[in-house]
Amino acid sequence: MTGHGPAISDHPGWFTELCEESGSAFALQLGKKLHDETSSFQHIEVYQTTHFGNLLVLDGFIMLTARDNFLYHEMMVHPALFTHPNPQRVLVVGGGDCGCLQEILRHPKIQTAHLVELDERVTRVCESFFPELCAANQDSRAGLHFKDGIQWVTDAAPGSYDVIVVDSTDPVGQAARLFQAPFYAACHAALGQDGILVVQSESPLIHTDLIQSVRKAMADAGFGQITTLTFPQCTYPSGWWSATLAGGAIPHTEFREDAVRTKVFATRYYNLGTHRGALAQPEFMKEELGSK
Amino acid sequence: MTGHGPAISDHPGWFTELCEESGSAFALQLGKKLHDETSSFQHIEVYQTTHFGNLLVLDGFIMLTARDNFLYHEMMVHPALFTHPNPQRVLVVGGGDCGCLQEILRHPKIQTAHLVELDERVTRVCESFFPELCAANQDSRAGLHFKDGIQWVTDAAPGSYDVIVVDSTDPVGQAARLFQAPFYAACHAALGQDGILVVQSESPLIHTDLIQSVRKAMADAGFGQITTLTFPQCTYPSGWWSATLAGGAIPHTEFREDAVRTKVFATRYYNLGTHRGALAQPEFMKEELGSK
Repeated sequence: MTGHGPAISDHPGWFTELCEESGSAFALQLGKKLHDETSSFQHIEVYQTTHFGNLLVLDGFIMLTARDNFLYHEMMVHPALFTHPNPQRVLVVGGGDCGCLQEILRHPKIQTAHLVELDERVTRVCESFFPELCAANQDSRAGLHFKDGIQWVTDAAPGSYDVIVVDSTDPVGQAARLFQAPFYAACHAALGQDGILVVQSESPLIHTDLIQSVRKAMADAGFGQITTLTFPQCTYPSGWWSATLAGGAIPHTEFREDAVRTKVFATRYYNLGTHRGALAQPEFMKEELGSK
Repeated sequence: MTGHGPAISDHPGWFTELCEESGSAFALQLGKKLHDETSSFQHIEVYQTTHFGNLLVLDGFIMLTARDNFLYHEMMVHPALFTHPNPQRVLVVGGGDCGCLQEILRHPKIQTAHLVELDERVTRVCESFFPELCAANQDSRAGLHFKDGIQWVTDAAPGSYDVIVVDSTDPVGQAARLFQAPFYAACHAALGQDGILVVQSESPLIHTDLIQSVRKAMADAGFGQITTLTFPQCTYPSGWWSATLAGGAIPHTEFREDAVRTKVFATRYYNLGTHRGALAQPEFMKEELGSK
């Protein structure tokens, strides 16, 4: 940090998140603080904001706002589910806010959607302050388990899931292992034929090294097809985010386009065009990642 | 503004831009200040940043950084130029940093590229501190004119240009008229058959009202085809930006794909996939803008 006086993250009336690795910061203007607790795992805060609805903060990092989380949740879920030929059994690792779980359960053919989140308090806090994300928690197909996700995947019977969604925090502390080959190998084993793994993989502009290491770890874990999707996400660093898909033989460009065209649920960002757009690799990504 | 003490935009060691209409702020960590002047038109500042290279600020708003301006400049220019069937004569209104001019002149068939910028000082400052954007200023096809762009377009002979690029600041003060129907009608007259107008049209997430009013003004000015493209732009509010294309009869989805595939110059973001991706309308934009 340069400068003197208070840190940029300590400005009254604002929540400011510092992104040290890019020398940038993003701030939201606050209304009142709605919740503050330290669970067994992390510091959980919820604020009102003036323009983005409620804001969830974990250990000082913006997790989501009511206004823009649809971008992330739709793009973490629908491309993967429309890439798998017939997804029925889905696992979310992390994702305690339940936004991914809800998007998964919009697909009528889903039979079971398991959420395995380490910190039950995140889910309970979201049920209170983000009820719009938790509307599917009572769905009979949903199973909420407050356990270690890596252990869960390691213990899963081979071929238990069609799609695994890793909706983690940044790759620091506990979450670091969710970006490494041993975990992806366990996912590979837990996935059935044509199984798809999708992980949030940070900013295409700022975190190219991380994306590269995720892609390598997936290849090392035995996945044959690896594709990094990009999409806007305005409250995360750089305002641009990525999800990396890993699968077996089916090229990710050959997703179920007809099913997207005729989907029976509403989305706010996702559709056939934005799915294809997310697959497009900007020139600098092709160069830096060797992607196509 | 809520809170007490100094404004969020007044933090030592950082340049912070407040976006009042979305209750958000974006900040870059600074090295030293390289330039500060008040021209006849505006306050011009240039800073070093720790991670984004040099930063140009006009009247307190971030105009560009060395690191990420390629996203904006490529997407303001190449979709429009690959949509026109044979662009040879191009006008940039504004764009004094010369980044758009340079992208235009990468197209070998361009015969003339006029830049009409109100404030010569912006260009001279950029020649000093962003030489990488100004490399084409000495190109014999380039014409730099430091005049009022609206007057220039109004005075232009009918059919003088194939493409007009409006690379303006935000729609306040002088620049507001660049977002209104009388100016677009003058552009319409100055464009030849199949002529394309492209204007920067702010954030798809934050400025939907502005985009809507730009589109209506273009229709009122006689343009038959209007398309809003989106692309990441991490140092502008929300990290997601738009350009709106207006043209005659040719649908903007029918651009010169073969020419994109075989283009003879390098880009860092733009290619066939990202062009198509930029055309994709997210669901909420279709709803709010009535776009397709």
